[in-house]
Amino acid sequence: MATIRDVAKHAGVSVATVSRMINDAGYVHEDTRKKIETAIRELRYTPNEVARSLYKRKSKLTGLLLPDITNPFFPELARGVEDEMQANRFRIIFGNSDENSKKEKEYIQTFVQNNVVGVIASTNHPDSDTYRKLEIPVVFLDRTADNRPSVYSDGREGGRMAAQEIVARGSRRITVMQGPGHIRPAQDRYQGAVEALSGSGISFNVIQTSSFSFTEAGTWARELFEKHPDTDGVIASNDIVATAVLHEALRLGKKVPEDVQIIGFDDVPLSSLLTPSLTTIRQPAYDMGKAAARLLIQLIENKDMTQKTIQMPVTFIERDTTRKVEHYG
Amino acid sequence: MATIRDVAKHAGVSVATVSRMINDAGYVHEDTRKKIETAIRELRYTPNEVARSLYKRKSKLTGLLLPDITNPFFPELARGVEDEMQANRFRIIFGNSDENSKKEKEYIQTFVQNNVVGVIASTNHPDSDTYRKLEIPVVFLDRTADNRPSVYSDGREGGRMAAQEIVARGSRRITVMQGPGHIRPAQDRYQGAVEALSGSGISFNVIQTSSFSFTEAGTWARELFEKHPDTDGVIASNDIVATAVLHEALRLGKKVPEDVQIIGFDDVPLSSLLTPSLTTIRQPAYDMGKAAARLLIQLIENKDMTQKTIQMPVTFIERDTTRKVEHYG
Repeated sequence: MATIRDVAKHAGVSVATVSRMINDAGYVHEDTRKKIETAIRELRYTPNEVARSLYKRKSKLTGLLLPDITNPFFPELARGVEDEMQANRFRIIFGNSDENSKKEKEYIQTFVQNNVVGVIASTNHPDSDTYRKLEIPVVFLDRTADNRPSVYSDGREGGRMAAQEIVARGSRRITVMQGPGHIRPAQDRYQGAVEALSGSGISFNVIQTSSFSFTEAGTWARELFEKHPDTDGVIASNDIVATAVLHEALRLGKKVPEDVQIIGFDDVPLSSLLTPSLTTIRQPAYDMGKAAARLLIQLIENKDMTQKTIQMPVTFIERDTTRKVEHYG
Repeated sequence: MATIRDVAKHAGVSVATVSRMINDAGYVHEDTRKKIETAIRELRYTPNEVARSLYKRKSKLTGLLLPDITNPFFPELARGVEDEMQANRFRIIFGNSDENSKKEKEYIQTFVQNNVVGVIASTNHPDSDTYRKLEIPVVFLDRTADNRPSVYSDGREGGRMAAQEIVARGSRRITVMQGPGHIRPAQDRYQGAVEALSGSGISFNVIQTSSFSFTEAGTWARELFEKHPDTDGVIASNDIVATAVLHEALRLGKKVPEDVQIIGFDDVPLSSLLTPSLTTIRQPAYDMGKAAARLLIQLIENKDMTQKTIQMPVTFIERDTTRKVEHYG
């Protein structure tokens, strides 16, 4: 592979001159510039990505920050982002913040230092300096902040929907599992559920859960049925937690949905393979990822845009952890 | 933030000279060097990551290539890599090849162009030029090739183990699901199972499956019970496929494990939350990730190493999709 030294020798100029031109770091005479360009072409010299991006005035590298890749919702989002980026000849690098703001900041720095031209971030801190100070386009995904570019689904409506559907199917002693306090979409759906239940005049219990991990989900499921053994309807904070609740209910010998109805959130690929298969509120994860990628590309290319925040609809996916509505409607 | 121009001005030299020094691209007089170093310090100038890595002769950025983040086994691996890297102050960027060799090559190029100092790759093509030509350390994860640095688990032994355990528990009409042909670990465990079954003199059926996706897993599960309705034991190619087989068996009104026993592979977090919970062969994904990160760090730091290929043990995790051995042993 040709080096910068080979290019300099071939063009009959110094390495410093080639470097100056590639890095746009000072005056280079037009004739010299042409000689260097010819040498680069003839030797098929590829400057490293950073040099090349300065040279071409545009890199095609973007960064995607995910909060937790062990939650199957996020790999689906990521696939959407990746497919759309690839179709448009952009490349992406991933970071996994693990819901940790220090790790998040480090990943964003890594992205910037590697000259990404844009960032898609699923962050709990869209208002932090990390993003405010970025001089490249940012799209928030699964999150929103003021009127900044973002793609998210209607969590509050999803929560309301879950509550209405479980009530319509006859649950009267409902437990709502409140997701992690620092994860906004979880709080949105929680508030939506509480709103709808409060409006319907049905009393309900709340169990606090502080993460979405598979391991801890089992603990909360046990806590739920210990504290509230007569629960006949569970609105879970996401499908992982719902999976654990279903497992625990069956372990306790309860019939689902006859004794307890369960509604999840997200519709991750696994949910349809559970037995009974999980009724849930679907977020269109893959499409949200694609939409975020399209939005970021438009921002990078300075296209006129009428819509910078995209709210995507959630849908009720009726499966077998809820009863049929005709019996209770 | 200070720019290269500010540094040049402060040091009383040209931008080209500063660039030459930072990029190590030509002679710079010792006195000039000192002036530039002082200016860099006083202005707290941070060259971009690439320049800085050349300057410091060492970047702390590494690349991790995963084949399919929607398979929950890989996020666990990634978490192990990430935690160990972070503990050692290395950073990582991810790429998801989607089992596609073109995407894989592009990610490896992206890593190299961003001056990573090492790569961890879960690849089906460890022998390809993409890796042979890399001039930085590479560790293969969940894969092995010749005696090159790698961390993997004993798939063949895992396959044998699955077969022995299901036979010991009384299955006599076994169906083995052969995983995707291009995924080596899947073939290793398949061959292990076939070896053990052939040795035991028990006849068995084989169903070919060409991916590990949740969506397609359901199709193969249906095919399995259509083609071989009297199957009383299933050795699945991984836990995703096993989940689909369990779902289909229950849907058909079969009792698990009384009518059909099922053994998975991997022990992903979900498997213990299924009902009945899934018996499986566990790969220590998180620990494999950590071991790969440690190995890569040793290679980067040129430490003497006695062991460059690390094979990790698999274990039989007995849960509720298999019968108790005392009845049949």
